[in-house]
Amino acid sequence: MKKIVVIGGVAAGLKAAAKARRCDPEAGITVLERGEIISYGACGLPYYVGGDVHDIEDLMKTPVGIVRGPGYFKNVKDIVVLTQTEATVIDRQAKTVKVKKLATGETDSIPYDQLVIATGASAIKPRLAGVELGNIYTLWHPDDARAIQQGLGKGTFKRAVIIGAGLVGMEMAEALTKRQLEVTVVEMKEQLFPAFLDPEIAGIAAKYAAEKGIKLLTGEKVERFIGETDVTAVETDKRTIPADLVVLAMGAHPNAKLAEDAGLTVGATGAIVVDDEMRTSDPDIFAGGDCVENVNIISGQKVFAPMGSTANKHGRVIGENLCGGHAKFKGILNTVVVKLHGLTVGKTGLSEQDAKQLGYEYITAMVAGPDKIHYMPGAKLITIKLIAEAKTGKVLGMQAVGEGEVAKRVDVVAAVLTLGGTIDDLFDIDLSYAPPYNSPIDNVAVAANAVMNKLAGKLKGISSLAAKEKMTAEQTVFLDVRTPDECKQIRLAGCPNIKYIPLGQLRSRLTELNKDDEIVAFCKISLRGYEAEGILEGAGFENVKVMEGGVAAWPFSCEKG
Amino acid sequence: MKKIVVIGGVAAGLKAAAKARRCDPEAGITVLERGEIISYGACGLPYYVGGDVHDIEDLMKTPVGIVRGPGYFKNVKDIVVLTQTEATVIDRQAKTVKVKKLATGETDSIPYDQLVIATGASAIKPRLAGVELGNIYTLWHPDDARAIQQGLGKGTFKRAVIIGAGLVGMEMAEALTKRQLEVTVVEMKEQLFPAFLDPEIAGIAAKYAAEKGIKLLTGEKVERFIGETDVTAVETDKRTIPADLVVLAMGAHPNAKLAEDAGLTVGATGAIVVDDEMRTSDPDIFAGGDCVENVNIISGQKVFAPMGSTANKHGRVIGENLCGGHAKFKGILNTVVVKLHGLTVGKTGLSEQDAKQLGYEYITAMVAGPDKIHYMPGAKLITIKLIAEAKTGKVLGMQAVGEGEVAKRVDVVAAVLTLGGTIDDLFDIDLSYAPPYNSPIDNVAVAANAVMNKLAGKLKGISSLAAKEKMTAEQTVFLDVRTPDECKQIRLAGCPNIKYIPLGQLRSRLTELNKDDEIVAFCKISLRGYEAEGILEGAGFENVKVMEGGVAAWPFSCEKG
Ligand SMILES: Cc1cc2nc3c(=O)[nH]c(=O)nc-3n(C[C@H](O)[C@H](O)[C@H](O)COP(=O)(O)OP(=O)(O)OC[C@H]3O[C@@H](n4cnc5c(N)ncnc54)[C@H](O)[C@@H]3O)c2cc1C
Ligand SMILES: Cc1cc2nc3c(=O)[nH]c(=O)nc-3n(C[C@H](O)[C@H](O)[C@H](O)COP(=O)(O)OP(=O)(O)OC[C@H]3O[C@@H](n4cnc5c(N)ncnc54)[C@H](O)[C@@H]3O)c2cc1C
Ligand SMILES: CC(C)(COP(=O)(O)OP(=O)(O)OC[C@H]1O[C@@H](n2cnc3c(N)ncnc32)[C@H](O)[C@@H]1OP(=O)(O)O)[C@@H](O)C(=O)NCCC(=O)NCCS
Ligand SMILES: CC(C)(COP(=O)(O)OP(=O)(O)OC[C@H]1O[C@@H](n2cnc3c(N)ncnc32)[C@H](O)[C@@H]1OP(=O)(O)O)[C@@H](O)C(=O)NCCC(=O)NCCS
Ligand SMILES: [Ca+2]
Ligand SMILES: [Ca+2]
Repeated sequence: MKKIVVIGGVAAGLKAAAKARRCDPEAGITVLERGEIISYGACGLPYYVGGDVHDIEDLMKTPVGIVRGPGYFKNVKDIVVLTQTEATVIDRQAKTVKVKKLATGETDSIPYDQLVIATGASAIKPRLAGVELGNIYTLWHPDDARAIQQGLGKGTFKRAVIIGAGLVGMEMAEALTKRQLEVTVVEMKEQLFPAFLDPEIAGIAAKYAAEKGIKLLTGEKVERFIGETDVTAVETDKRTIPADLVVLAMGAHPNAKLAEDAGLTVGATGAIVVDDEMRTSDPDIFAGGDCVENVNIISGQKVFAPMGSTANKHGRVIGENLCGGHAKFKGILNTVVVKLHGLTVGKTGLSEQDAKQLGYEYITAMVAGPDKIHYMPGAKLITIKLIAEAKTGKVLGMQAVGEGEVAKRVDVVAAVLTLGGTIDDLFDIDLSYAPPYNSPIDNVAVAANAVMNKLAGKLKGISSLAAKEKMTAEQTVFLDVRTPDECKQIRLAGCPNIKYIPLGQLRSRLTELNKDDEIVAFCKISLRGYEAEGILEGAGFENVKVMEGGVAAWPFSCEKG
Repeated sequence: MKKIVVIGGVAAGLKAAAKARRCDPEAGITVLERGEIISYGACGLPYYVGGDVHDIEDLMKTPVGIVRGPGYFKNVKDIVVLTQTEATVIDRQAKTVKVKKLATGETDSIPYDQLVIATGASAIKPRLAGVELGNIYTLWHPDDARAIQQGLGKGTFKRAVIIGAGLVGMEMAEALTKRQLEVTVVEMKEQLFPAFLDPEIAGIAAKYAAEKGIKLLTGEKVERFIGETDVTAVETDKRTIPADLVVLAMGAHPNAKLAEDAGLTVGATGAIVVDDEMRTSDPDIFAGGDCVENVNIISGQKVFAPMGSTANKHGRVIGENLCGGHAKFKGILNTVVVKLHGLTVGKTGLSEQDAKQLGYEYITAMVAGPDKIHYMPGAKLITIKLIAEAKTGKVLGMQAVGEGEVAKRVDVVAAVLTLGGTIDDLFDIDLSYAPPYNSPIDNVAVAANAVMNKLAGKLKGISSLAAKEKMTAEQTVFLDVRTPDECKQIRLAGCPNIKYIPLGQLRSRLTELNKDDEIVAFCKISLRGYEAEGILEGAGFENVKVMEGGVAAWPFSCEKG
């Protein structure tokens, strides 16, 4: 009987074990987990803290309420799970794993024919003074979430400081504002979601976060934590922020030491190197989940991208290949989606920053628009930024943000990226259309059209960030072509050289504009801004730009009323 | 100055005109429309009748409330729109269009350099006795919707009969049940949505419709309408149904006569033939929208598929090509999405029936599952059926139904179909994952996995329809592996040979089953049914099948409580 041993009892490890069982009813399968619990959905922890998930055990249950504990794995899947059992050494010669029973201190040696390393990643804990004070948590394991929940229950937490404006940090910012805490997020880099968003998209999300009461301090570095036993304040390079609760959301590092010590190849990312069948440098040892490197299929680069979706797919591929299969894992797109109260932020493929860094000749377009046809109740705006290779039109990446249906558009572009499609393909897709769901030309197709229009020289875009720089330039006139009603409601703040001409009057009021000026046209979403460009260029204006995304995607302040 | 003339002032026609203007600021552009109004969203009519859209003018307005009438087109786009102006003859030699001014009866002749035919389609009106009685409507034009709305306002409509269970028919069934009418839908074919759904998916939707109070009579033919001045009843080949309001939703036919009379090629579908640049058999005449044939890019077949999304894309391609461009329209996937109260039904590519008819060697899989991870509030079930070519794994089509997020999954598969992807590609896509949006392995990837499992012989599926046939077979045992709690709540009705063994007990209760019997395993969604198959086959059972989709996708009656 073949002996399969798996180290790590969460997503990748248990998925590999479960799939191996489905592929081989005979093999002996043993899973080693150093923690007390297994098979938990860490992704759900912020929703437990925020109150959407009432019982933390729900994160470890099947949909019908059965806890996926060792008994479940024994009865349903005939898999032996040993908890509180740490793998300490992999002896590749002897093909054994040395383990330590954490409850008793006993050690043992477990033989394997094939081994799976699924040790995951650990939250980064900075070496800063005071980091060991009470009420400073990472949010990685259910125990962390339970502890925070208990503190919240006592009512002693009033002010939370979150360190890091990435996925976990911002999900926690949502969760803790929902629980009525005053929330400050401190981020070292200059923007929200610095790991994956371009600044003008990040700005839209940051503006929204501020509206929801989240105080975001970017370009600010935490230096130490202050307090006696429990934390009372966070000191940054700019100020001291009172805090009853601190969440460290500064990213994670792969748990690759066990593999490294066993002589397995570890990459520059610090994660374990695997081939496209998820094999390590030892053919009898597979690895998957947060502890391994992934390939971004667009850039070809090796990346550390710890995601639960990827971990589960890795596990399935490993399970099949443990049983003689040759399933492949092709790589990832660094796809991300994250909820921030009513806002959704998503990204797939390369950002513009990525494309630039990789030396691509690229083109981008940013379009805003309602997520379904405007006359339907519940239509909400979304903004999409698309990045494509200039020469070939190949789609490189996409970002999207808005209160509307963002995830659908991200997933459609992810599919196109996976198959190497172009902006033409994106327009061609016969997407499902009915009024409750979208518009006849879906937002992703409009984004593709905008890229086409730029390539054809018909749409000369300027980003919100670049436009902001020009606000005080003398030779630049901002041309707002919205209706008087719209302009009465909301206007760009601090814009001295602005002309208000509704689009329908533009053709007859051309003399009010000067052909020597640079004109930055815009409207609510910049559809009419684009029409204005066409009208002006048709009339001989030569220096017209469209502010992409319009007022809807303006990340700076506005005047209202 | 080049003269562009467009016949038809709605989606395809005005889109072509608008795009042509953006590509050529100089051309003279004239649109001829026989109706009084233009640029209306017919797709929104059911939502106006149902009450979601309060003002029918909203369907003709821009998002900021400007009515897209001739004035709008003049001011904003410098396009002349002539309403109540019917094109009666196209003289290709003289390059003129003869028109009749419907208000005055005057005729005129309008010269063109390039012509666009965008005459749309018309609702089919059957030649049945009584069809001209009062309160019998098609729902095609805003006037129809207005008339129905007026009747509803008077409160005299109590019982509606809808003829045809297609898109328009069922959207109207929703609308009229929302307005508290008693609604009966009569459909000649044997199922709901006969044009695009396979019967087992249609069955799920039909069951839902019945729960919402929609009475659906399939396999039943309307023979005549009864009444004095207004309709009072509908007589079918099976019964007489009292009716105060009748909606004829029996499909549409292309308005191709004008083109045909001018000697342009018309296809077997009855619609105008165009090439991939949307040119008719006359290089100076383009055509698009509901009046032209499309190519289904999977089957390669020419089809009549009148959709607003397609019409708008056609228009954009035509607009570009009117101005010397060479934009291509690659074809369609016969993608559909339709809302039926809280249910969404979608389809893209081929149905199983299509695949069979076309002679494909295909494989299908049907999986049910929550649309997001089950512990998140608001998670709802969806059922996906995937059809793939057996030899190559190429995806051929997909259908989906459920109260959860269906449209996203349809669109992802549409993207894969457009790029010729396989079930492997579908699994590989790095779809965005976070708990508010989906599960780590998204429903479409699970569907792909199920197809892979079937190809590998690991999942032996049986459809709900085939299972139903076996319910009374002596040698077939239904094996329900759900928990006792679940079984208490709901059970398949009329199933004499059924065993209830929860999955967790199956390994220890194998002796209760007989290896000579055919075993049909299932659970709520048939994930556990599939695990049961693995356990049984591992134990030497050789005749085990999994009922695909489980109780969730069971289209027949259930016992409750
Ligand atoms: C708050 C939060 C939110 C998240 N949200 C998302 C999201 O929205 N979308 C998404 O895709 N991903 C999300 N993730 C990431 C996702 O949870 C991880 O990618 C996933 O859990 C990785 O699974 P894994 O099996 O590789 O590793 P882990 O889940 O880390 O499991 C590894 C296990 O191995 C055990 N182990 C390690 N070393 C040893 C040893 N030597 N001996 C025995 N056992 C050992 C550990 O105790 C651990 O239990 C989130 C994570 C967190 C923390
Ligand atoms: C109730 C309903 C719901 C729908 N729902 C959806 C949906 O959810 N999704 C979807 O994709 N599609 C939907 N559609 C279909 C969509 O509305 C059509 O595909 C779209 O309107 C087609 O546009 P068109 O410009 O080709 O034709 P049309 O909208 O039919 O416009 C053609 C115009 O040409 C005019 N015309 C014809 N002949 C002449 C002539 N000789 N001279 C002058 N003028 C002429 C007609 O008067 C008409 O105004 C729906 C349709 C209806 C009726
Ligand atoms: C759940 C877990 C134990 C994996 O076990 P598993 O048995 O593979 O997972 P599931 O119970 O979802 O079953 C999946 C199987 O059922 C199949 N399936 C799912 N729905 C089905 C349906 N409706 N009909 C038929 N088969 C179905 C799947 O294709 C898959 O089989 P395959 O891999 O052989 O193709 C592991 O993923 C885990 O511990 N997860 C929790 C932690 C986690 O995922 N964290 C990260 C995200 S927060
Ligand atoms: C509206 C209609 C007149 C077409 O006019 P149009 O000017 O092409 O349409 P829009 O106002 O949506 O403008 C679209 C243009 O703005 C561009 N655009 C849209 N949003 C943009 C944004 N945020 N930033 C920049 N450009 C944008 C589009 O790419 C497109 O330009 P392109 O074709 O040159 O690429 C025509 O489609 C119509 O009459 N529709 C109503 C009827 C109908 O569609 N019925 C069927 C469905 S119910
Ligand atoms: Ca694969
Ligand atoms: Ca194209």
